[in-house]
Amino acid sequence: MSLTNGSPEAAAAAARDASFTLASLPTSARNEALDAIHAALAAAKDDILAANARDLELARKAAADGALSQALVSRLDLGKKGKWEDMLQGILDVRDLEDPVGKTSLRTKLDDDLILERVSCPIGVLLIIFEARPEVIANIASLAIKSGNAAILKGGKESTESFVAISQVISSALAKTQVPNSAIQLVTTRDAILQLLSQDRNIDLVIPRGSNELVRYIKEHTKIPVLGHADGLCSIYLTATADKHKAAVAVVDAKTSYPAACNSVETLLVQDKALGTVFPGVAAALAEKGVTLRLDAASKAALSELLPSLPEGAIQDAVPQDYDTEHLSLTLAVKTVASVDEAIAHINAHGSHHTDSIFTSDGAEAEHFMNRVDSAGVYWNASTRLADGMRYGFGTEVGISTNKIHSRGPVGLDGLTIYKYKIRGDYQPTTQYGEGEGKRPWKHERLAF
Amino acid sequence: MSLTNGSPEAAAAAARDASFTLASLPTSARNEALDAIHAALAAAKDDILAANARDLELARKAAADGALSQALVSRLDLGKKGKWEDMLQGILDVRDLEDPVGKTSLRTKLDDDLILERVSCPIGVLLIIFEARPEVIANIASLAIKSGNAAILKGGKESTESFVAISQVISSALAKTQVPNSAIQLVTTRDAILQLLSQDRNIDLVIPRGSNELVRYIKEHTKIPVLGHADGLCSIYLTATADKHKAAVAVVDAKTSYPAACNSVETLLVQDKALGTVFPGVAAALAEKGVTLRLDAASKAALSELLPSLPEGAIQDAVPQDYDTEHLSLTLAVKTVASVDEAIAHINAHGSHHTDSIFTSDGAEAEHFMNRVDSAGVYWNASTRLADGMRYGFGTEVGISTNKIHSRGPVGLDGLTIYKYKIRGDYQPTTQYGEGEGKRPWKHERLAF
Repeated sequence: MSLTNGSPEAAAAAARDASFTLASLPTSARNEALDAIHAALAAAKDDILAANARDLELARKAAADGALSQALVSRLDLGKKGKWEDMLQGILDVRDLEDPVGKTSLRTKLDDDLILERVSCPIGVLLIIFEARPEVIANIASLAIKSGNAAILKGGKESTESFVAISQVISSALAKTQVPNSAIQLVTTRDAILQLLSQDRNIDLVIPRGSNELVRYIKEHTKIPVLGHADGLCSIYLTATADKHKAAVAVVDAKTSYPAACNSVETLLVQDKALGTVFPGVAAALAEKGVTLRLDAASKAALSELLPSLPEGAIQDAVPQDYDTEHLSLTLAVKTVASVDEAIAHINAHGSHHTDSIFTSDGAEAEHFMNRVDSAGVYWNASTRLADGMRYGFGTEVGISTNKIHSRGPVGLDGLTIYKYKIRGDYQPTTQYGEGEGKRPWKHERLAF
Repeated sequence: MSLTNGSPEAAAAAARDASFTLASLPTSARNEALDAIHAALAAAKDDILAANARDLELARKAAADGALSQALVSRLDLGKKGKWEDMLQGILDVRDLEDPVGKTSLRTKLDDDLILERVSCPIGVLLIIFEARPEVIANIASLAIKSGNAAILKGGKESTESFVAISQVISSALAKTQVPNSAIQLVTTRDAILQLLSQDRNIDLVIPRGSNELVRYIKEHTKIPVLGHADGLCSIYLTATADKHKAAVAVVDAKTSYPAACNSVETLLVQDKALGTVFPGVAAALAEKGVTLRLDAASKAALSELLPSLPEGAIQDAVPQDYDTEHLSLTLAVKTVASVDEAIAHINAHGSHHTDSIFTSDGAEAEHFMNRVDSAGVYWNASTRLADGMRYGFGTEVGISTNKIHSRGPVGLDGLTIYKYKIRGDYQPTTQYGEGEGKRPWKHERLAF
């Protein structure tokens, strides 16, 4: 790892060069690099926490002046219970994942002594732009090395001291491994983001780790593909045939278990027939957990009997923009719809193509919903909060993508690979093949791999 | 199919709406639509060829005035031997390919009654921009319908009459099928390309079918992912251990079998040790086929003895830009390198990441080359002309991609799909899972599919 305060262009070119070497390292060499990073960080704990304390002191002052949010200060703190240990364990977890590189997914005999293979390989050079969490460096460096990708890291200025301390430790650790020095670079140049985003010749993929605003800004300012999602506007469609009690539990889970998460539900669509049956119990359970319901006229009317028993402020009138807003808080927009098709149309028009769920006992209706909703995750009787790489069993998560190409939904290590086609032949001229007279037919025989 | 001369924005929105219906049609309904198109085109042959003749007449006049190239006129001609039949057969070929939609690639039991599935689905809305070949409409409409994607087609103005005739026939044919009318739209509005390229909300992927200039223009003017390649600068590295006679045959194939193709070789890198052994025979074979060699000093010197026997004009001195030029003609740049690593560095710096080959009898050297060359196709003792969807056995080809994400190399129907994650559950709250006391562990059990 190297610390770069030179030009972003030079950083990208150096990363490209290093990527070729990194891409051809065997699994063992990449895993040994992760072990080296782990050991070095463990040994340097005190120095790194001291650097982090200096960042924290500045941040706390800025927060006291109102220049920085308290949430950001909290995210900055590497000394918080379990955070340091989790960071170190994360490196070992990534090391132990299956190698995503060098996997064959196709082998075809085109002709005798002419074999085509499709083999997974790293994408090349990643640019990771993140905000205050200093532990992201170790996480991203691990993911990049494991998947054979070079990476340029650009962190928020609030954590500069922590970043520099961590990257110096990683740098000396990697110096004793086969991973080239420029393969992982930390860019500390101020205001380098726009210049980095313009390096589309030498950077293949941008991964933002931070707020919606950060992601949206990045998507608007680069031609490099961006892996991630700006918005997480997830919906649940509650039908009259949903299980009354279980539905209440699942909606509460989807809304309240981590309201600031991208996979929390933001809009509850209620079938009109469910207004008098399933909905009141769900509404009462939500209100009891402190959720504020932004109701349309029909759903509000449906709660009139319940109203006296609800906590004060539990209901408000919805305005149109509520259905296009990712509240990221205990506010839930509620809208009444007549049919599954109306629910689908609403979700496809107002949602963010992240994760949407239908609660129903009608299997055909559920399949119709899952086939027609254009989202990365389409669920039947399941909480939207399941949308997560760990929960899906991927071991780690690079991010959650709402892109329509490459990787969609929670992205594991595989999302950092592409493939190349290899052909091993015997100098056959292509002109000899074809269907006419005197031509040789292609064999196109699928081989085992 | 509808013919749109309204706003590109409205066309894109209508295509998005139609895409949801198209995406949920079963295989049979999509195949029946292809049958209907095939039958209707066959029945309307005379009318379409008459419309094509009107395009041709105008084009021939323009060509006579020097306003249009003769090559373009030739590409326009649907009446050319075999073209019409190939177009019709192509529709049936696509129909008979395996359905790329609805394929399950992962099934995991997260818990009892909580099953995760990853299922392939269409990308959504494609924008296909093409130049003079009118048969592309039928080809693209087939690929889009087969893969369940809506498509907006924008053709070159030279073939307007042919496009309109074909699209009217396709339109009436589709009217009797389950494919919605707006699923395939032909935009005839003049100068609509820039507006279409700005519809990133409702268009998911752009596929250019035409010249390098067209592709480069499109890549520079849109935020929508573009599937394709602007350049095809392929190289062959000829080592001293290559088979002398076979190498000559394969280089001649790679250069002369279709010089205007993107997978033809443009640069021959010659190991210095091969200059006096393998290279002269290769050079003589190329010269005999009319190839002009642009030589560096060392390779020129190596041919001094051979020179009197070469046809006039067979050799020229190379200038630096020859190694960055896709000649698309019988011109081949030749450069001497000392080692495989120098060849790899040259290719990664000057090539277009399309297809590159090494000719050697040393297996370890070949693997080193294939692992380190950053191209969609990396070959050992094989002609670069193999880079083609038909030749790879994909049945059809959407294009050849030099992108680093999603699809790389020749792209078959699979390249027009992405996947969604489906979960079928029983309302389980996510808060119950985890590793602490009283928590329920994830099962993460791989299931068959």
